[in-house]
Amino acid sequence: MSMPSVEDKLEKLKISLPDIAAPAANYVPYTISGNQVFISGQICKWNGEMQFSGKVGREFSIDEAKQAARICGLNIIYHLKDACSGDLNRVKTCLKLNVFINSIEQFNQQPEVANGVSDLMIDIFGEAGKHARSAVSVLSLPSNSAIEVDACFEIK
Amino acid sequence: MSMPSVEDKLEKLKISLPDIAAPAANYVPYTISGNQVFISGQICKWNGEMQFSGKVGREFSIDEAKQAARICGLNIIYHLKDACSGDLNRVKTCLKLNVFINSIEQFNQQPEVANGVSDLMIDIFGEAGKHARSAVSVLSLPSNSAIEVDACFEIK
Amino acid sequence: MSMPSVEDKLEKLKISLPDIAAPAANYVPYTISGNQVFISGQICKWNGEMQFSGKVGREFSIDEAKQAARICGLNIIYHLKDACSGDLNRVKTCLKLNVFINSIEQFNQQPEVANGVSDLMIDIFGEAGKHARSAVSVLSLPSNSAIEVDACFEIK
Repeated sequence: MSMPSVEDKLEKLKISLPDIAAPAANYVPYTISGNQVFISGQICKWNGEMQFSGKVGREFSIDEAKQAARICGLNIIYHLKDACSGDLNRVKTCLKLNVFINSIEQFNQQPEVANGVSDLMIDIFGEAGKHARSAVSVLSLPSNSAIEVDACFEIK
Repeated sequence: MSMPSVEDKLEKLKISLPDIAAPAANYVPYTISGNQVFISGQICKWNGEMQFSGKVGREFSIDEAKQAARICGLNIIYHLKDACSGDLNRVKTCLKLNVFINSIEQFNQQPEVANGVSDLMIDIFGEAGKHARSAVSVLSLPSNSAIEVDACFEIK
Repeated sequence: MSMPSVEDKLEKLKISLPDIAAPAANYVPYTISGNQVFISGQICKWNGEMQFSGKVGREFSIDEAKQAARICGLNIIYHLKDACSGDLNRVKTCLKLNVFINSIEQFNQQPEVANGVSDLMIDIFGEAGKHARSAVSVLSLPSNSAIEVDACFEIK
């Protein structure tokens, strides 16, 4: 009996990845150094359309912010898949997630919001998805995105 | 004559590490990739109790903020020790510290505050503790912590 | 016919690097782990003098902020050159840039500002300069710098 693949898990959990065109820009969605992949900061756009534009604690509840963080995570995995030449089973460890939250000053539940993207990594990659993490509130984000997340992975 | 161990140095400098229970969560205190250790963002809790909750430049002076940063560093070293299976002599280099400061907008002495954790690394690891660093002021932090610091180390 | 060196390119593009004295401090401008170089956060000082002190969107336009980001990039390359023992042709990839922008809350064009340092990397290193990137607005920065950028490179 073989291990279920990550793609099987995505299907079972009914998780769809977005369909993003790579930006023609002076930076790239990811770089690779040895077996480490560095993923650019992802905002909560889905297929190019902003889903959560505004501040957590004012425009958005914690539950909404968790969804926003999850969308950032799906964009991360989209690019990670490309970095793995389409084979997400090559992901060995999610090394680090940096979660930047566009919140009001009085907001102090950054960890709950960050769980939106942390849970996604565990859902998809299991043990390999357990990561180190930082979560901080920033003043503002590109396109007034509620969340931005960047990531570093080890692949094989 | 053998080199003094890091543990000897901790004792000589009367530096105690905290006694933290690992969080049962979807993220972990550290990940390891080859000989690099990535440590999650640490706030200024000591054994689970918040020590500095509020904004630097309003609730806290620079000296207090330096102490707060040092506590973040002690939490980092606690987890680093675990990553080294208890042997801090395996630490080869402190590669990078990211210092996030919960300050007021008018505060511009981030480097002085960050010295609280930078000094600790030199005190404990000597040459091996010399690190690259970023220090920025953010809008707010988990549990209203005054400081959050994450880190990357090379071990052997 | 040999490939033009990075130094030739700097000369052709009339790009000068700053002339900075290394800080006598508890942290260092860069660390090296295997073939990765971690560069400390650089602010927009040129030879020790602050060039852009204030907030993007209030004191500074996007064009000015791009120039500020470019100065951070030149400081990064200054230290990178030292990490390469003076030979910038050893740079294999710009792995990641983290761009911290000292803006007002209403500012949401972080990517345009970050292009100031991203364009510089492409100008100087070509394909090797294509990097992953995060860009966020923070509350304040050291010496009220408009921008701070840190970086990670792979060298050979």
